[in-house]
Amino acid sequence: MARIELFDTTLRDGSQREGISFSVTDKLKIAQKLDKLGIHYIEGGFAGSNPKDMEFFERAKKLKFKNSKLVAFGSTRRKGVKAEDDSNLRALASCGTSAVCIVGKCWHIHVERALRTTLQENLNMISESVAFLKEKGLEVFFDAEHFFDGYKDNPDYAIACLKAAESAGADCLVLCDTNGGTLPFEVKDIITKVEKEVRTRIGIHTHNDAECAVANSIVAVQAGATHVQGTINGYGERCGNANLCSIIPALQLKLGIEVLSPEQLKLLTEVSHYVSEIANLSPYPQQAYVGQSAFAHKAGLHTSAVEREEYGYAHIDPSLVGNIQRVVVSELAGKSTIILKAQELGIDLSSEPHKVNDILNRIKGLEHIGYHFDAADASLEIFLRKSLGIHPTFFKLERFRVIMEKREDGKVATEATIKLSVGGKEIIETAEGNGPVNAIDKALRKAIGSMYPALNDIELNDFKVRVLDEKKGTAAVTRVLIESGDGQKTWGTIGVSENIIEASWQALVDSIEYGLMHKKVHEENGLIGINGTNSKTGKSERVKSEKVKK
Amino acid sequence: MARIELFDTTLRDGSQREGISFSVTDKLKIAQKLDKLGIHYIEGGFAGSNPKDMEFFERAKKLKFKNSKLVAFGSTRRKGVKAEDDSNLRALASCGTSAVCIVGKCWHIHVERALRTTLQENLNMISESVAFLKEKGLEVFFDAEHFFDGYKDNPDYAIACLKAAESAGADCLVLCDTNGGTLPFEVKDIITKVEKEVRTRIGIHTHNDAECAVANSIVAVQAGATHVQGTINGYGERCGNANLCSIIPALQLKLGIEVLSPEQLKLLTEVSHYVSEIANLSPYPQQAYVGQSAFAHKAGLHTSAVEREEYGYAHIDPSLVGNIQRVVVSELAGKSTIILKAQELGIDLSSEPHKVNDILNRIKGLEHIGYHFDAADASLEIFLRKSLGIHPTFFKLERFRVIMEKREDGKVATEATIKLSVGGKEIIETAEGNGPVNAIDKALRKAIGSMYPALNDIELNDFKVRVLDEKKGTAAVTRVLIESGDGQKTWGTIGVSENIIEASWQALVDSIEYGLMHKKVHEENGLIGINGTNSKTGKSERVKSEKVKK
Repeated sequence: MARIELFDTTLRDGSQREGISFSVTDKLKIAQKLDKLGIHYIEGGFAGSNPKDMEFFERAKKLKFKNSKLVAFGSTRRKGVKAEDDSNLRALASCGTSAVCIVGKCWHIHVERALRTTLQENLNMISESVAFLKEKGLEVFFDAEHFFDGYKDNPDYAIACLKAAESAGADCLVLCDTNGGTLPFEVKDIITKVEKEVRTRIGIHTHNDAECAVANSIVAVQAGATHVQGTINGYGERCGNANLCSIIPALQLKLGIEVLSPEQLKLLTEVSHYVSEIANLSPYPQQAYVGQSAFAHKAGLHTSAVEREEYGYAHIDPSLVGNIQRVVVSELAGKSTIILKAQELGIDLSSEPHKVNDILNRIKGLEHIGYHFDAADASLEIFLRKSLGIHPTFFKLERFRVIMEKREDGKVATEATIKLSVGGKEIIETAEGNGPVNAIDKALRKAIGSMYPALNDIELNDFKVRVLDEKKGTAAVTRVLIESGDGQKTWGTIGVSENIIEASWQALVDSIEYGLMHKKVHEENGLIGINGTNSKTGKSERVKSEKVKK
Repeated sequence: MARIELFDTTLRDGSQREGISFSVTDKLKIAQKLDKLGIHYIEGGFAGSNPKDMEFFERAKKLKFKNSKLVAFGSTRRKGVKAEDDSNLRALASCGTSAVCIVGKCWHIHVERALRTTLQENLNMISESVAFLKEKGLEVFFDAEHFFDGYKDNPDYAIACLKAAESAGADCLVLCDTNGGTLPFEVKDIITKVEKEVRTRIGIHTHNDAECAVANSIVAVQAGATHVQGTINGYGERCGNANLCSIIPALQLKLGIEVLSPEQLKLLTEVSHYVSEIANLSPYPQQAYVGQSAFAHKAGLHTSAVEREEYGYAHIDPSLVGNIQRVVVSELAGKSTIILKAQELGIDLSSEPHKVNDILNRIKGLEHIGYHFDAADASLEIFLRKSLGIHPTFFKLERFRVIMEKREDGKVATEATIKLSVGGKEIIETAEGNGPVNAIDKALRKAIGSMYPALNDIELNDFKVRVLDEKKGTAAVTRVLIESGDGQKTWGTIGVSENIIEASWQALVDSIEYGLMHKKVHEENGLIGINGTNSKTGKSERVKSEKVKK
């Protein structure tokens, strides 16, 4: 069977989902994660008219991708304009990607009513745009908009559009079910007929308006498509795009088509959750393959049987996609996860098996009340260090107070006062801020900054808040995720509390302590020797730090 | 084509979804709603061992169903026991329904390992159980558990199980994809083969573990199945059951099989939301056909075209399933988007083109500083009303103050004091909360609650915070999204500020004002006449409110 190409459009079509608004940094992070997963093509966004996406392509030039090619998206030239004079096509050709994807109309009604031009001019727009981009040496994907609806209405014209792209040298003809209402049998029938008309490779791009996007993509591959477009978690406009998190394991584990390496496939659950964290959307627990409930068993009929035969009630072994079975929590699997994680953080637990059980139980307790260490490695490391009594103490908080006022003139003022001890010295400081967390952050920096000058390099990059028990509104448990960086690396920390300020404080302290702990400068200054005393033994502790290039 | 039977198992299989726990009253309410929708069979629950379900069947005897038959669920007799001596089978026969559904094993491995009996005894269990129930004059559905996996593994034995049920007189052989991992082409192949072996009508029962449950059900009907099992919203264990809210419109609108009357089909969206309310789960906005986003358009590429041809970008006319087309206002919006959006909100802007430009520019300005009206329809409506000078004033804030302390004992205390005037009266109130926004919310409700008793029905469901300019950390601009509801509908509001509390305040006030504005009770009490003065003209303003059934 021919190689199947995976084409991810989370950053373009996926971002059309209501509620998603990716920053350029978000997009760069997701692109790197998709590269790690092994996606073949990553559509980064619109070239031309969209300044945010142009910034993305500019900044992406500095990234090195191991597995993926970046793709820029645009439309065929405007009507009545030469391709070389179309500013969007020129922007597309010059945004630095080696592959581009252009969308063109294939449904005659849309050509006449939406585009308001002749059917011939639309064919010219397709062929001249493809030819222009091919002349620039680019790999060109032609997105055949509304292909299935167009074909059902006027098959000759829909095929003529594909042929216009093919004759101009398009590398792949991507049949789009733009309205998402096509059913599997129609996809099969139409692709089978299209294959008799064109020789170029066929791609499939489906939407989930009939809840058939995944099935339609699988059926298309079985009918001969060798290029599959979709998004992580099926994010997309209306009901979403085809969900790569379901298509990839179906192709690989059920149809035996190796689209990723087995090691890459194991990253699928992590990538799914990572993208939802960045989108600030709760992961969908019922999501196929990667959801938290995907391999959880509740029915009495099943649970005892599940125990007897581990995967007799699961359609695949969940570890193949990096997920876990939830009823039968294998003690060994849980323990080995902790040992591996600690190892990754530079902590050797293999010689202390008695501690692992205790740590595992405490982590489960924390996760039960809403902690979620997926996106908070730094907090996990601090938790492990504290559990092992090897976490240095940088300062000791006594109390803080925040006062906010919205005054009669409409202005808002916020001040925080913090009292703490550092190196045996008591300090009290007050600072104003733009909000309560900012004010506390500033007061804390004012209080300990002179002892820890490295704090100047530590910045909070991102701050995300999520309410966990939605049904309680503003009184619900709040989870704060902070992402920090020092210009060299970034790290995530977490806090959970009914009080958003308390949750923020936890994440803030973890963030700063982690940053200080990993700053080589402290080892050199010996400050950890003074202040970084072992929290259990009272002995001073040198922290293994990463190599920091300056 | 043969009549297609719809069989709903929301009350039995659907309730296996994590987080769902229906009371008997809940179940009775849902059953009546399903009857109204026109579902042919409603599986109410387990007979026998489950007292809650037995109470359901007892109480259900008093209900009169117009379209539906109730079905009780159970298993084949235990091994080594006579059917007439099996207490569960006897309970099943005597719980008062005219139809029953029994599950039996069809995968030889499960017979041997889970059931721990011989393959022949399992066949006897099936045929004797069916025969026992048929002797009682009941309509009998045989749920062939693990049928597809069993067939792939040992087709002869799987068919033998069906024949055992058929020979004993079963009315329908329901092929179950119990683990949910079967793909559409397998469903088609296997059903085609089964049809050569049996004469009894064939049913289909699928799960969504491969995100193909809806497609598999449709494919099964096309292959000859005439009985379709599923649940409302696809609720069910793990990744859920086949979603009737997607299957029904596909059969009716796309395959031309009339399973409901057109009037009943129009209830689909309402039924979907009703069941999610009773399950205490948020409706899934991206759900096919019935979701709030299912017919929402955001991409600039489409919205101008949407206006030109209303359903050119929708796969069906949303009103056929009781849903509506919605325009999402986003970065890429143009004038036509604003006019359409206002129209949707009941505001006619077509006669005031000069205002549209001004409004559009102001919206773009707001979006530039971080507003994002996608998820904040209610704030957009308030913005439009304010721009047009037709927004009622419910209260006037003078100032508020929030104090938070993390004390020496580690405890956190938060209090808010708010001063405002309502109906000419000055009020000052203080309240404690779990966090600053919760404290302000409580103080505000304390201050204006007696004037606006409808406030009791307005709840904040979800609260999301996002930092917009990541590079500034905690000092960056913060966007707060609040989702509120009054048990009838939900609405989203937004606030943007450098100060998280100020941003929350904006979203909170919009949320409460929108809720009050759309409560009919205020019209009746004439409170809007007193307090709802036109913010520009000072004239009192009656707000068009939706019909609220109480």
